Amino acid sequence: MTRILGIDPGLRVTGFGVIEKHGQGLRYVASGCIKSEAGRSLPERIATLFAGVGEVIATYAPAEAVVEKVCVNVNPQSTLLLGQARGAVIAALVAGGLPVAEYTALQIKQAVVGQGKAAKEQVQHMVMRLLNLPTAPQADAADALACAICHAHAHAALGKLGALAENGAENRTLRAYRVRGGRLIG
Amino acid sequence: MTRILGIDPGLRVTGFGVIEKHGQGLRYVASGCIKSEAGRSLPERIATLFAGVGEVIATYAPAEAVVEKVCVNVNPQSTLLLGQARGAVIAALVAGGLPVAEYTALQIKQAVVGQGKAAKEQVQHMVMRLLNLPTAPQADAADALACAICHAHAHAALGKLGALAENGAENRTLRAYRVRGGRLIG
Repeated sequence: MTRILGIDPGLRVTGFGVIEKHGQGLRYVASGCIKSEAGRSLPERIATLFAGVGEVIATYAPAEAVVEKVCVNVNPQSTLLLGQARGAVIAALVAGGLPVAEYTALQIKQAVVGQGKAAKEQVQHMVMRLLNLPTAPQADAADALACAICHAHAHAALGKLGALAENGAENRTLRAYRVRGGRLIG
Repeated sequence: MTRILGIDPGLRVTGFGVIEKHGQGLRYVASGCIKSEAGRSLPERIATLFAGVGEVIATYAPAEAVVEKVCVNVNPQSTLLLGQARGAVIAALVAGGLPVAEYTALQIKQAVVGQGKAAKEQVQHMVMRLLNLPTAPQADAADALACAICHAHAHAALGKLGALAENGAENRTLRAYRVRGGRLIG
């Protein structure tokens, strides 16, 4: 069993998703968002993000992390803010002792939906199906879960973890999609 | 006495400078650079940067930190890389329990040289004079020291630390500019 933490970084909302790869199947563990208040200073927002990722690591003890590669935005200021959020997230992951893999949005969509230009709703739908969730996760959490699924696929492709079962029967007893209170919200 | 850590963030080279504000004067403590290898993956480079800033904090025990605000680059990809480095640096500072202040390059040049459009060489020269250094610090280290000096000025302006003496007599016995081996280099 390998527990994988996927992260979709953002300064306003950072999505996270934890899954387990069990032989031929995937099991949903948890997902949610870390939000930072827009009115706060950048160091305060980064502190929230860093502590939030640290709390996710402490709570779910993943063995590996994977972060979506971000694209440059048409607005350079947005690119800078997103870059800072992503840098803080990766810092929190390496501070937590996790190896960090990276995939582009295209690779992630390809792995989860089967084609790189899939719409956000398709990603949410396929994440729900692949992890046998009763409802679609919130969009940022779904992206983070998709990221983790993509990494499990890559593992499988490398022969490290065996082939990926797209909808393992063992998942059918899965508990309902969980939302955590406080700073980590669903 | 307040010990201030200034940082000039960059993915390739992050400059740092530590100064002390003693009543009317400033005292140089240390400065240098944290470099990350261009051939490594982004998570590896961020790990180097995060550990390097952590080592500076552990070694010099500053009470406050200040980071230069970065500008968007004409190259969006460079902006993204710089943003990620800055996010990792700020994460390391907040992880070290330090309050983090931010100033623009314009504010820093204004504080150190007296005008916002000063050339890099002028900043290096004034940092050398204000801290009574025998030689000019390396450019990134000088920017980091300038950042720390700007913060000391701002303190003074707020009446927190009293007026800033531009070249305190107590600095004349200062030891030569130090360079640390290993990852932290001068």
